[in-house]
Amino acid sequence: MSCPASLRNLFALCCAARGAAALCAAALLASTPSPGAEPLAIREIGSFHVGGKEVRLDGKGRERVRREGLAKETVQPKGDFLYGQVYVHFVLLERPTAPYPLVLWPGGSLTGVTYESTPDGREGWQMNFLRAGHSVYTTDAWQTGRANWARFPEISPEEPVFRDAAFLWEIFRIGPPGSFATAPAARQAWPDTRFPTGAFEQFARQAAPRFRLDSELTTAAYDQLLQRVCPCVLLTHSASGPTGYEALQKRPDLIRGLVSIEPSGGIDLTKETASRVARVPQLIVWGDHVTDPGARETWEPLYRGSRRYAGELERAGASVEWLDLPAQGVKGNSHLIMMDANSAEIARLIDQWIRKSVR
Amino acid sequence: MSCPASLRNLFALCCAARGAAALCAAALLASTPSPGAEPLAIREIGSFHVGGKEVRLDGKGRERVRREGLAKETVQPKGDFLYGQVYVHFVLLERPTAPYPLVLWPGGSLTGVTYESTPDGREGWQMNFLRAGHSVYTTDAWQTGRANWARFPEISPEEPVFRDAAFLWEIFRIGPPGSFATAPAARQAWPDTRFPTGAFEQFARQAAPRFRLDSELTTAAYDQLLQRVCPCVLLTHSASGPTGYEALQKRPDLIRGLVSIEPSGGIDLTKETASRVARVPQLIVWGDHVTDPGARETWEPLYRGSRRYAGELERAGASVEWLDLPAQGVKGNSHLIMMDANSAEIARLIDQWIRKSVR
Repeated sequence: MSCPASLRNLFALCCAARGAAALCAAALLASTPSPGAEPLAIREIGSFHVGGKEVRLDGKGRERVRREGLAKETVQPKGDFLYGQVYVHFVLLERPTAPYPLVLWPGGSLTGVTYESTPDGREGWQMNFLRAGHSVYTTDAWQTGRANWARFPEISPEEPVFRDAAFLWEIFRIGPPGSFATAPAARQAWPDTRFPTGAFEQFARQAAPRFRLDSELTTAAYDQLLQRVCPCVLLTHSASGPTGYEALQKRPDLIRGLVSIEPSGGIDLTKETASRVARVPQLIVWGDHVTDPGARETWEPLYRGSRRYAGELERAGASVEWLDLPAQGVKGNSHLIMMDANSAEIARLIDQWIRKSVR
Repeated sequence: MSCPASLRNLFALCCAARGAAALCAAALLASTPSPGAEPLAIREIGSFHVGGKEVRLDGKGRERVRREGLAKETVQPKGDFLYGQVYVHFVLLERPTAPYPLVLWPGGSLTGVTYESTPDGREGWQMNFLRAGHSVYTTDAWQTGRANWARFPEISPEEPVFRDAAFLWEIFRIGPPGSFATAPAARQAWPDTRFPTGAFEQFARQAAPRFRLDSELTTAAYDQLLQRVCPCVLLTHSASGPTGYEALQKRPDLIRGLVSIEPSGGIDLTKETASRVARVPQLIVWGDHVTDPGARETWEPLYRGSRRYAGELERAGASVEWLDLPAQGVKGNSHLIMMDANSAEIARLIDQWIRKSVR
């Protein structure tokens, strides 16, 4: 099977640089995924919810939130409600070849859809990792997607934040600030972006309202999930990076490897907490334009926090691989690396890292 | 392969009665699904969003909805927002043996999770139909699950309805009115219920907030979906029953068979609209306790509407199979037939109906 130009190119650029040479060589030697070529042998596909609490509301009446001009109505939130759960979708291979199943945790205002098909219809990381021999658990954090949200202000204290299209375009580093326009042809993405800009609307349709102040319940629900399906490898993205680091502090026995895709910084470590997780190998992946004007105000502090976290772990003896794509010659990745044009190649690098590092 | 007692029992009870004898015999003769016995050969698993609109909000400020006691904040909804989309998850078999893929449309305040694993962890209809040779599309209607909701009151005119646990217990006919209690041991389900009552909380965690007034956008999005993935067999449940009938009016060429699980009534038909869809075979399935005291106020009118719709179609020459489970000796099915203890047997009956009736 021949090696696609994109992967050869990635290899050449990437392996010329320090650090990741062994990783890249392994990626090149591995069989290239060929979507559709071989059927997957699947044992089961299904889902469940995990975590959450019950609350009883007392039925105190208030005015229903309605648009101006509609007749007033009273709502009386009353009865038992379940909230705080995480949704977990699983695809179990008949004969996985990876050492452990992979648990995918999405970033803020995103759901497990992040890891399904890419916005332009290519196979997503869920399929990439299945084809590479990993059983995959894909999750929706509480208040997003199929982990349905709870009413506000009675259960959640306040209404969520809704991100408009321009904000999504900028915060996910598809283009610099001010480069979004309603008309697709008028948008100015970074010239080298690997995000499939023609499918931006398809991506924007998966963005979920974002609630604040719910991290404790989310962490508790994910902890229950880890106890249920691990030992495993955990993969986080963006805002779930730091919460993944907290989860690792609780379960260094169950998380056998941790992959952080552009984590929103690190967490504060002491000598004790660093050494508690030092035996768990970690991989941290960063894309491009992090320090560009307009992006660096948001991203540089997170990148530095991520670097600092990795450094502290390394000083405690941990194995932390740092895959800084542009530093290794791979330009143009957005914050949505799992949707970018080279998503399958990055998945392949992660797969190879897992096989090399996770015991 | 031996026939499980539950299926033999269903056969005995069911086939003793009029109407469904051929259907039941076919079900018994077919190989019984044995979860986990044989791996599935899968071509692809993925997802996409379809349908929806774009709206530009002007940024007119208002007070943010927050709990009493929290500091006041202003929110200025501003920018381009996408809304009205349907989420579609697909599992495509390498070699389907069914004539067409199956599209699963959930009921009101439910999502595609309805069709994934049952609340007590058995394989759901998605797996049952995959094992029976159907490629399966599972959907979330707009404002539920991964078809994320739009802010109110700026886009949706009002906040949704949230169903408390007691309401879910009663409306899905697990137990009669007044039979729910917060403590599981104190709940009084119908003695013969087939719903897995021990997993009620697991079910309640999948219930989604329910918006009113969004049927037009939902119908338009599903119509786009049908144009994209059909010819197909469409399966609806409850509130999606009548909207499925509307969809069939638009696309009698694309929907080659229609299965309605306890549809919330029918739609009004004229001689012309009945004959437009008369060549499409339909199956209508009803569970138990529809006319019991406390349930009949809600359910009997819907059941009668469903009967009337079927009758009008039959007079127009359509083939409409009516699977009234209790009338055929199968007692205790709730409104959530796809989660009941005999869900796999009902899936088998539906599969056999498709193979017998759909061309």
